[in-house]
Formats: sequence, C-alpha cells, structure tokens
Amino acid sequence: MLKYSFERKQGVPLYEELYKALKADILAGRLRAGERLPSKRAMAEDNDISVTTVLNAYQQLITEGFITSSEKRGYFVAEIQKIEPVPETPRPFVGKYYKEDEWFADFQSNNFLYNHFPFAMWKKVIREILSEYDLELVRRGNPFGLEELRTQIAAFLYRSRGISVSPECVIIGAGIEYLYARLVNLFPEDTVYAVETPGYRKIPDIYDAYDLRWRNVGMDAHGIRMPELISSGANIVHVSPEHHYPLGTVMSVARRYQLLNWANSDENRYIIEDDYDCEFRYQSRIIPALKSRDSAGRVIYMNTFSKTLSPAVRISYMVLPEHLLQRYIEHTRFFTNSTSSLEQYAVARFLEKGYFERHLNRIRKRYRQEGEQLIALLQENKRIPIRSIRGGDSGTHVTVSLDTTMSDAELRKRSAEAGVHLSCLSDFCTRPDPRYDHVMVLNFSDMDEETQREAIRRLGEIF
Amino acid sequence: MLKYSFERKQGVPLYEELYKALKADILAGRLRAGERLPSKRAMAEDNDISVTTVLNAYQQLITEGFITSSEKRGYFVAEIQKIEPVPETPRPFVGKYYKEDEWFADFQSNNFLYNHFPFAMWKKVIREILSEYDLELVRRGNPFGLEELRTQIAAFLYRSRGISVSPECVIIGAGIEYLYARLVNLFPEDTVYAVETPGYRKIPDIYDAYDLRWRNVGMDAHGIRMPELISSGANIVHVSPEHHYPLGTVMSVARRYQLLNWANSDENRYIIEDDYDCEFRYQSRIIPALKSRDSAGRVIYMNTFSKTLSPAVRISYMVLPEHLLQRYIEHTRFFTNSTSSLEQYAVARFLEKGYFERHLNRIRKRYRQEGEQLIALLQENKRIPIRSIRGGDSGTHVTVSLDTTMSDAELRKRSAEAGVHLSCLSDFCTRPDPRYDHVMVLNFSDMDEETQREAIRRLGEIF
Repeated sequence: MLKYSFERKQGVPLYEELYKALKADILAGRLRAGERLPSKRAMAEDNDISVTTVLNAYQQLITEGFITSSEKRGYFVAEIQKIEPVPETPRPFVGKYYKEDEWFADFQSNNFLYNHFPFAMWKKVIREILSEYDLELVRRGNPFGLEELRTQIAAFLYRSRGISVSPECVIIGAGIEYLYARLVNLFPEDTVYAVETPGYRKIPDIYDAYDLRWRNVGMDAHGIRMPELISSGANIVHVSPEHHYPLGTVMSVARRYQLLNWANSDENRYIIEDDYDCEFRYQSRIIPALKSRDSAGRVIYMNTFSKTLSPAVRISYMVLPEHLLQRYIEHTRFFTNSTSSLEQYAVARFLEKGYFERHLNRIRKRYRQEGEQLIALLQENKRIPIRSIRGGDSGTHVTVSLDTTMSDAELRKRSAEAGVHLSCLSDFCTRPDPRYDHVMVLNFSDMDEETQREAIRRLGEIF
Repeated sequence: MLKYSFERKQGVPLYEELYKALKADILAGRLRAGERLPSKRAMAEDNDISVTTVLNAYQQLITEGFITSSEKRGYFVAEIQKIEPVPETPRPFVGKYYKEDEWFADFQSNNFLYNHFPFAMWKKVIREILSEYDLELVRRGNPFGLEELRTQIAAFLYRSRGISVSPECVIIGAGIEYLYARLVNLFPEDTVYAVETPGYRKIPDIYDAYDLRWRNVGMDAHGIRMPELISSGANIVHVSPEHHYPLGTVMSVARRYQLLNWANSDENRYIIEDDYDCEFRYQSRIIPALKSRDSAGRVIYMNTFSKTLSPAVRISYMVLPEHLLQRYIEHTRFFTNSTSSLEQYAVARFLEKGYFERHLNRIRKRYRQEGEQLIALLQENKRIPIRSIRGGDSGTHVTVSLDTTMSDAELRKRSAEAGVHLSCLSDFCTRPDPRYDHVMVLNFSDMDEETQREAIRRLGEIF
C-alpha cells in the first residue's frame, strides 16, 4: 500500500502532488524498476482521492516514461538509467562575453549613421506600414524577399547604377554574410575564389569559415592585376570596382573590360561585384556598375542597406544572373525568408517615395564635409609625418601614407594607448608587402569635428 | 582639332556633354589608343567653352580609365580591350520563379498564426518601441542579439522549460537555418551528425548543403534508438525530445538519461535539442527540457518565435554551453547581428509584459480545438480506411495510419488532384522502412472547420 499525505496547496492540482510524490519515490529508488504500482482504484481508496486524480498522475508518469502500463496487468515502474556523476568540466567564468570597445575616437569602423539616421521619416514609414498592412506582415512570404522591395531595388539600381535586371533576380538576405553563405553553396567544391590584397578582410574570413579555397591577387593603379588573377587559377573573383577598400582605387574602364572578358571566356567564371559604398562618390559622376555591362550573365552584384540606412536594418541584397537564379532556388528550397517583413516594406516605401535618395543626398554631403575636414586637420598638424593623403573624393575613409620608421604594430599600439583606434593598410593585406607599410586607414563617418580635432592632435603626439 | 556641338540641355552640365562625346569617340575607335588629346586650353578655345569644363570632362574620363594624363606631356587615349562577342548562353525564360502553391487545403505545412496573430498588441508594442527608442534602434548592436531580448528569453526558459542559463549563453539569429549554419562551424571537420528517421527533413538537407557527414538512426516508442546511435559513430545528435516530428513521440525519462549519459561520456559529443513546438502540449504538464538536466554542458538548445509568433518575425535562438560560447565568439567575430533591432525589442517586451504567454495560452486552446475537430471529422468519415490516429495531445499535426494497399505516391497524387496537399510518414524517412508506409501526416493549424470538413470529405473520395 502506498499512502501519501497531500499539502493540498491552492492552485496545485491534486494529481500533480501525487505525480510528484511517485516520481520522487522512483528517482530515490524507494519504488524499484519493475515494481508493480497499486491499481488506480486501490491507490484512490488508500489515499482517499478520486480515480481520475490517480489516472491523471499515472498518465503524466507514463508520458514522461517513469512508469509503463501493460493492458490487463497494471502499471510498472520503468527502468531508469541514472546519470553517472560527470566530472564537471572546467568552465571559467568569463563575465560579459561581448564588450563594446570604448575609444575616444574610433577610426577603425565606420559608425555609419548614428547621427544622421532619418528617424522621423523612418518612424513615420513604419507607422504607415503598421496601419496599412495586417496579414502581409506575418505571412511566411517569399523566401527570396518581398516582391515590393525587390521591385523597388531593381528600379533603384536602374536609376542609380545603370543596371537593368528583372526584380526576380534580386535576392534579399539578412546581411552580406548571410547572402555569401547562400551564394558559395551554388558552386562546385573545386571552385577557387580570388580576393584582392590589400582588401576587405571579411571576405577571406568567410571563405575560411566555409573551408573554401581562395587565392590573393595584387592590385595596381587600374584595379586587380589581370596576369596574377589568370595565373592564380581562381574562377570566381571578388572585387569592388567602384571604390576599392581600403586603397580607394576606381577600376579603370580598360581593366573592367579585361575583367569581363576574363569572366566571359569560361562558363565557370564569375565576378562578385561588391558595390559596398557606391553611394558615396563626391567629386565626379557615379560610374556605371560592372553589372550594367554584364551581357553574358557573369556578374553577381551585392549591396546592402546596412551602410546607407542603418547597421540595425538587416537588409542586404544580391543580383544573380538568371541561370544562377535557377540553381539558387534548387539549392535553397529549405531556407526561409531571413529578414523582417515589416522592415522590408519600410525600405521598399523609402525607395518608392524617394526618401532613400533624399537621405543619401543629405549624408553624401555630410560625409564629404567630414572627409574634407579630416584632411584639413591632418594637413594642419605639424607632428604627423605625412607623405601623402588619399581619399576624400568618395567613400568614408582616407589613407595617410607616413614618412616614419615606426612599425605598424607600434603605431597601432601607441594610438590605442592614446584612445585612438585605427588600422594600417598592412592589416588588409593577406600577404606581406612592404609597399603597404606605414599607411594609416582612417574611417571618418559620423565623427564630429571636436573629436576629429582632438584625435588628430593625439595622433601627432605619438610620433 | 576636335570640335563638338553641344545640345546645352537644361540640367545637364556642359562638362558631361563633352565627356560623353569624347567617350563615344573613344569607344567607337574614332579616337584611337595612344592618340593625344588637345590640351585643355586648345580644347576650350576650339569649342568655345571654359577650361574648367574641359578639365572636369578630362577628370571624369581619367577616373573611368578612358584617358590617361602624363605630367607635362598631356592627355592620351587609353588602351581599351573591347568585350569580345560572347555566345549568348541559353537562358530560358522561367517567368515567375517563385509561386505560392494554391491548394484547397494544405495539410503539408502549418500556416502558423495567420488567423491568430495578435495584431493589435504587436502593433501597440512596435509603436511603443518606436516612441521610446532612437539611437538603440540603429546601432550596430551586439552581434549575438540584444541584451534585453536575451535576458527575457533566459527568464522565459526558466519559467516554462526549467532551463537555468545565463542570458549570455542565449544567441539570437535570423532563423534556425541561420543559427545552424553558425553552429556547425564550431565543430571539427570529422564530426558526424545523427538525425532521427523518420524526422524533420530540413536538418539532413542543411547538413547536405554544408557537405557534412550525417547518419540516420531509427526510433522506438521511447525515442531515438540508443544502440543504433552508438554504432552510427555519430558524435552530435539532433533530437526533439518533447515532441518528435512527425511521429509525436515524447522521449521517455529513461531514454533521456541514456542520451545524456551518452553525451556526457565523451567531450566531443553534443545533443542538439530542437524544442520546436514545446509550447503546444495540451493534455499533460509540460515536460522539462533535456537542457534543464544538462549539468555537463553537452546540450545545445534551439527554439524559434517563427512558430509561436509569426513566420515573418525572423527571431530564433539557441542556448550554448558556456565552453562553446567561447568558441562561438572566436569563430563568428566577423558576423554581425542578423535580426532587426526593432523586432528584437518588440519580442523582448512581449515576453516581459506577459503578452507572449497570454498569446500562447490563446493559440494553445485554439490549436487543441482544431486538432480535436480534425480527429472527430476523420473518425466520422466512413470512406477513409483508418487503422489508427495519433496526435491531438500536443503539437499541430496528427498522423493517420491507413489500412490500404494504395502506395504513398499514389495517395499523395490523388489527394493533390483533389486540391488537398499532404505528406506521408515515408516522406520523412531518410531510409526506406515499410513500417512507416500508409500513414498520412496532417498539419492542421489555422485551418477553419469548413475547410477541414470539405478536405476530409475529398480525402474520403480518393479511396
């Protein structure tokens, strides 16, 4: 006979008390594996509770596997293998795993838009979307992005970059890394990727993360060096023809044609055109994208709103040649839409109503001023041994070539000690090259004049 | 002498007209590679325009690489390799690449929440967040997710699943697929994954997409078969102990302990606990998660708000053991936050204010009714040769075992012809097993009674 005393607490069903009491007895070994439990009726009578209460407790124990029921024979305690004591693996307490760096001035990353984000307009548009849409905001939606947004992006690309594509070829994703992960899946295992050196380090990092083969290829004044690209054996090349990061090179038309010819001559060759800051060209007309001349479908175009709207708006896109689109759909049939529908609608409306281009004009002007101001402050400073300054005509960074013997590591260390965070050109090289030593890379967007002035003063002190 | 006539259109700068005229001549070969252009002054005089206009046009041509300038010597037409005519690769016109299927009734996927989404509350919260926050909405943010949301998720997991973890171990991502892609990166190349058969097909699909090695392991009434798991050589296993999809099995406590012991006995072993519909248990108490008993840090817990809030809210999360967190940070340093900050704040508030649990209670009740209704309709139908029905006590699907010789392919085909989309259990098997033939899997969430009734009637007709 099993007799339990119940606390009969308010809010706790009686069956739950019984379930817990039985479970405790099983776990403590007081009820042993194979032992038969009293019948529902006997248990009910012994404890002065209803048969239903017993049934509910037994059901829960069966669901969790503590007891089994055997028709006609009754209920039995199950065999439960206890957890063996495990040597607690040492788990150091690390405190907060992620800390935002605190610098007096951070030239290493662009704090895009913290000060210039068009809050009023953005909030107005989000509120509009909230009022106008219901079901559309929660539907699973097209896994490649909402038609409304893709249509607006296609129209924008035509207006601003001379690219004429079907909205169907525009694929939306939660960030360039996300799209990259999908993209590299389309190509066979023996694919070799080429990246520029110096270049944007995130790209080879992503290739490494996916265990892909990549080669680095040097640069000259016209862009990526073609003979080196050809001898590298790579068949997919990642470039930013509009504005190389961090060299600032604009790929010459001659080199563009060479590159397109290279890609057109083999059906396994592709160019990934990373148009990351094409929107920020100040002193000359915007140069048409490589993609705009891609008659043979060899160019994959990528861009993002994270750099023009906000890093918190996770909407990036790529434009695939039509034959790759087919392959993309086959390869990603199990992937779902990765970005918020609300924000996709909001960005679509931003583009449709011209708010986005108005915003671009405003920040383009602002960044141009910030760049000019930074260059002026650098030129005024008498202690920094400046050989030459490049940049200011586009983008949101300048490179400062120095007449110094101080190593780049020492330069970074001393400036960090002064609260100034910066990179050197050599940080962007995937192979050492003395031509790129002694060059500071300064990202300037969204830094106010006071901070710039003091940061440059502090930089002067370290020499 | 080069003389051009200008249209002098309003809004088009004169330098642009000159630039275009020169570019056209270069591209057409009328100005040949190496040819010297007139000096700025000569060009200005010949065309009766200012020297500045000529300078701007020449600058643009230099930027784009059409001409080069050589100090003291002048401006020269650059060598431009023309694009060779490329045989147009056949690109079939495919029309719209993505079509949403139109079925009279779709039992294949759960149309989670289209009818039950708490619009009023969701919109209210989004509006609140918009009023209260500015800068926080556009900052780059913690790449692992906003602290506010991770704190609320940790609290929710404690309340609802008995899981006690530091908010730091909760990683936010844009969908389970996204998190999976990050997760598999943490493990060495020789890792072997185990999936249940039958089971959720998306998981082996993802492994295939990343070229990972995986084995399938069979099921019994207690859950995944341990001897088979052990002999498979796998060291990471993906399971849904709370509610197997599509079998509906609840892993027994005995099996849970066996599985934990298996993982605890080797430091390369991990369990991925996919708790995809733990929120929908109707007829018994919620069973504590495997993760809640994970004293040795071998369990990776995954869940998503896409199934409980909306598939358009792309917020999923995983809970990592602390030692993996460290590795995660090293491996993903170049990944940025993948989800909308606005929606992260909104979900955090939903959790904090209890709106989420209120919403869960409401849809739990609703889904229970929908399940009961479907089972009743199936039982009433005299033409479907039903052997048994499983489900209805949790989740949003039932399985219907049939007494028929009709093949599953034929069954699917005939039901599709009747406008009814469904899967069979055999569709979820990664190896053939006749035990799982002749079983329909019906996902029922958010289908109204009329549709259910007519769909079941149509199903009856096909036998």
